[in-house]
Amino acid sequence: MKVTVSRKAHFNAAHRLHNPSWDDATNKAVFGKCNNANYHGHNYVMIVHVTGEIDPQTGYVMDMKVLADLIDAEVCERFDHMNLNIDTTEFKELIPSAENICVVIWQLLRAKIATQYELKVTLYETERNYVEYAGQ
Amino acid sequence: MKVTVSRKAHFNAAHRLHNPSWDDATNKAVFGKCNNANYHGHNYVMIVHVTGEIDPQTGYVMDMKVLADLIDAEVCERFDHMNLNIDTTEFKELIPSAENICVVIWQLLRAKIATQYELKVTLYETERNYVEYAGQ
Amino acid sequence: MKVTVSRKAHFNAAHRLHNPSWDDATNKAVFGKCNNANYHGHNYVMIVHVTGEIDPQTGYVMDMKVLADLIDAEVCERFDHMNLNIDTTEFKELIPSAENICVVIWQLLRAKIATQYELKVTLYETERNYVEYAGQ
Amino acid sequence: MKVTVSRKAHFNAAHRLHNPSWDDATNKAVFGKCNNANYHGHNYVMIVHVTGEIDPQTGYVMDMKVLADLIDAEVCERFDHMNLNIDTTEFKELIPSAENICVVIWQLLRAKIATQYELKVTLYETERNYVEYAGQ
Amino acid sequence: MKVTVSRKAHFNAAHRLHNPSWDDATNKAVFGKCNNANYHGHNYVMIVHVTGEIDPQTGYVMDMKVLADLIDAEVCERFDHMNLNIDTTEFKELIPSAENICVVIWQLLRAKIATQYELKVTLYETERNYVEYAGQ
Amino acid sequence: MKVTVSRKAHFNAAHRLHNPSWDDATNKAVFGKCNNANYHGHNYVMIVHVTGEIDPQTGYVMDMKVLADLIDAEVCERFDHMNLNIDTTEFKELIPSAENICVVIWQLLRAKIATQYELKVTLYETERNYVEYAGQ
Repeated sequence: MKVTVSRKAHFNAAHRLHNPSWDDATNKAVFGKCNNANYHGHNYVMIVHVTGEIDPQTGYVMDMKVLADLIDAEVCERFDHMNLNIDTTEFKELIPSAENICVVIWQLLRAKIATQYELKVTLYETERNYVEYAGQ
Repeated sequence: MKVTVSRKAHFNAAHRLHNPSWDDATNKAVFGKCNNANYHGHNYVMIVHVTGEIDPQTGYVMDMKVLADLIDAEVCERFDHMNLNIDTTEFKELIPSAENICVVIWQLLRAKIATQYELKVTLYETERNYVEYAGQ
Repeated sequence: MKVTVSRKAHFNAAHRLHNPSWDDATNKAVFGKCNNANYHGHNYVMIVHVTGEIDPQTGYVMDMKVLADLIDAEVCERFDHMNLNIDTTEFKELIPSAENICVVIWQLLRAKIATQYELKVTLYETERNYVEYAGQ
Repeated sequence: MKVTVSRKAHFNAAHRLHNPSWDDATNKAVFGKCNNANYHGHNYVMIVHVTGEIDPQTGYVMDMKVLADLIDAEVCERFDHMNLNIDTTEFKELIPSAENICVVIWQLLRAKIATQYELKVTLYETERNYVEYAGQ
Repeated sequence: MKVTVSRKAHFNAAHRLHNPSWDDATNKAVFGKCNNANYHGHNYVMIVHVTGEIDPQTGYVMDMKVLADLIDAEVCERFDHMNLNIDTTEFKELIPSAENICVVIWQLLRAKIATQYELKVTLYETERNYVEYAGQ
Repeated sequence: MKVTVSRKAHFNAAHRLHNPSWDDATNKAVFGKCNNANYHGHNYVMIVHVTGEIDPQTGYVMDMKVLADLIDAEVCERFDHMNLNIDTTEFKELIPSAENICVVIWQLLRAKIATQYELKVTLYETERNYVEYAGQ
């Protein structure tokens, strides 16, 4: 019996959408206000979904406390109260769009979660905009 | 890498569930309060989900501003502050149940979104009742 | 010790903002889309706040079940799945703006709640617009 | 055209995570605070998702009122304001983890919903932790 | 300039409403399902509101981290994953209704927050039922 | 009859808490992660509350569209997708704590709203932390 367990967490960060291979006018035309040179920011909310078999000894697919600690160590410690463009290695060369942040979070967690589990990450940039990645 | 981007929007409308091929007693028995002759209404909340590849130049699957404007032009302009049964062409012959409204929204958007993208629409009629259609 | 107990409830209704003493152009100019002749609608969410002393025998200010039943009988039975302009006596002569609906709900409940309690009503017309009345 | 209709409901219950084949120290180590001998509790929120064809006569996949009544009769009547470990037969031998509760709810509903419909159940134990089961 | 800062926190607990000076039939009649002998439970959500002057050196009324830690130490450590009737001293003689829990939380925090600040506590027992106490 | 109308709006911004009259160690000790030199950010949500008499001609305390446009022009245009510390004049000398941002928003709106109305502003910095100012 395959069950999906989902855990919500959050981090607050500054970012800017900017493609360094383009001139300023193109960046402004494509990214609009999100290109602001001095950054803006968001309360990012992520939901991490792990799918696997229920362990009959515990009734757990995965201990939610372990999953919460993993999200904290791998994602929140890295990104919370950071400037994604400046303070992180992950977005030195990669535009920190919601899509790319979501894929990076998935990769960070995938490396730490045993392969018998399926993994999907949902990332809310605002209450109205969110993205989802499942590794395909 | 396939990522799904989701955008939330809303419209407020009046409607009535009524099958003109049935007599009043049958309509009342099947649709109950939703059959009220003078209409009732809802704050409809929709989430539009678009799945595609990330463009490495922008970090976007699709520009959320473009998607938001498309939802506004195709759905909100058409249905917001309208009586779905009277003021629209879509529900002249079709019962405006949540299911049918969701399918109609999907069709309206599908016609305007490039075929390389997958499309799914979620429609909340109330906080407790919602429906989803992905074109299958 | 004065404690406020609050109970959330909801009803779905159609309405139209229209002042019959004005011509159509004025109504359109003032009320915009809310003036649509064929009505539109909302999921109204109300929160009823009752303030009083805790009864040491029960630990209750007021039995929430009694309050919930009262809201249901006085408000939901009257307005749920109705057209406020046509199907109710309260809005025959009164414009069913959120403000007026809130005052009417307060009056309906005030008549049924013992005078030792203070009463306030919050009414959400949409997630973004709400009003509050406390009888002053 | 396959549409999914979803209905939200809730129940409030006490529970305790405890494996009777383990000693107290192991139970405490594995389940932590959730092992508290005197129980703790949650406001469980479930969303029941039913997928099927739209009936052209009604515009419904399934009458939401019928679905709501079924959830009430099969799940809420059984679990609401109960101690899951003591007051129910389902969790006499089964640890009432969110995962197991979700599977039990799915089984209870599956037995009552016609086989032409697909069924999925989402169960929130807290706002931050939820699980999902679709019968695979 | 008086500003109110509010901090949200939560705890999950079991409880039972029961007046030991009444017989079982009276308890059942007054408290209904909430009287269940084996307890039920809730995800309690509290919002703690502190009103005071802004410190021009910090821009803070009160350091939110300090307030969060205080709520954690005084309330969550005491009540989280507990049976309020059995595991706490506060509700040995006091019925753990939402009203009484809210007053107790207010008293616990009032004893630790400097008197120049005003204090109010909001406590949600469910999404639909909540109570508020400000010490009057 | 005095009714309060409330309107929700939002803006996304970067900020940093830093007192230039202190050394770095003191700033770090007082503001912690919020002192990060490269900024972080939030989705700020504000609720603007205006209290006044209902106009019997319209049923309105104040036209919500007018209030929404005012919030947009005075607050969102100024702060949305900005770095509060760098891109605004209001926080050149004032620490952009939630408390100070809330007071500044109140002052910006108070200057534009007729004096017969009372005004209160609620500002959420995160879902768990919010502040409120009513001009006293």
